[in-house]
Amino acid sequence: MCIRDRVSHIEHLGIAVKSLDEAIPYWENVLGLTCYKIEEVADQKVRTAFFMLGQTKIELLEATSEDSTIAKFVENKGIGIHHMALAVENIEEQLADASEKGLRLIDATPRKGADDMTIAFLHPKSTQGILTELCEKK
Amino acid sequence: MCIRDRVSHIEHLGIAVKSLDEAIPYWENVLGLTCYKIEEVADQKVRTAFFMLGQTKIELLEATSEDSTIAKFVENKGIGIHHMALAVENIEEQLADASEKGLRLIDATPRKGADDMTIAFLHPKSTQGILTELCEKK
Repeated sequence: MCIRDRVSHIEHLGIAVKSLDEAIPYWENVLGLTCYKIEEVADQKVRTAFFMLGQTKIELLEATSEDSTIAKFVENKGIGIHHMALAVENIEEQLADASEKGLRLIDATPRKGADDMTIAFLHPKSTQGILTELCEKK
Repeated sequence: MCIRDRVSHIEHLGIAVKSLDEAIPYWENVLGLTCYKIEEVADQKVRTAFFMLGQTKIELLEATSEDSTIAKFVENKGIGIHHMALAVENIEEQLADASEKGLRLIDATPRKGADDMTIAFLHPKSTQGILTELCEKK
């Protein structure tokens, strides 16, 4: 992946929760962050809640269906960090470079994600066990 | 935890690996980051490698003993994100506040961590399933 010089920061951490209503008070009342957006992403079968923590967003993910990947993650691994998203430019080029370097693409082409981002996931088997998302603000 | 207004950013992500030698090339050659330090933390039975990714450090953790918590983590859960560290001020006060708010402390008092930080861990059962470290540069 020719990501050199173009990964600027961790755009967000995706965190699997059972319930936004139960999870949000921890981030607000214990850590003192502010939830600035709640958004449903229908094709991912999740409801998301966003907070800023310095340069990085915290994205809480609640399954809206039993066959959501988040529901399966929570069932198998429990609540906790689900993925790491890297801020990139030229996401199409990054994905092509990732593929050339032998990384496994979950999304062969970028698609629309939450919070107005264009995104693509890389398979954790090829990214050091970390489900990794590339994210670009178009 | 009276952490409000005093958590500035994610200081680092701790990432469990089997071998620094095998893991470092991913972060360097694929993501284009630079390893700026390798440090052994004897009392934690780990060797660590550090990279900057925007405001946040990536801390790779390799067990130096079979009874290291990192060895157990890798055996049970595989390689991947192990903990999230939050940058705070007045870590002693933060820990007292965390305890008052009912969070479970792994470290009752702050101790020396890698990369010249004073640290204390909170139990993931009380922090939304995320092993959470408070970190202060003294």
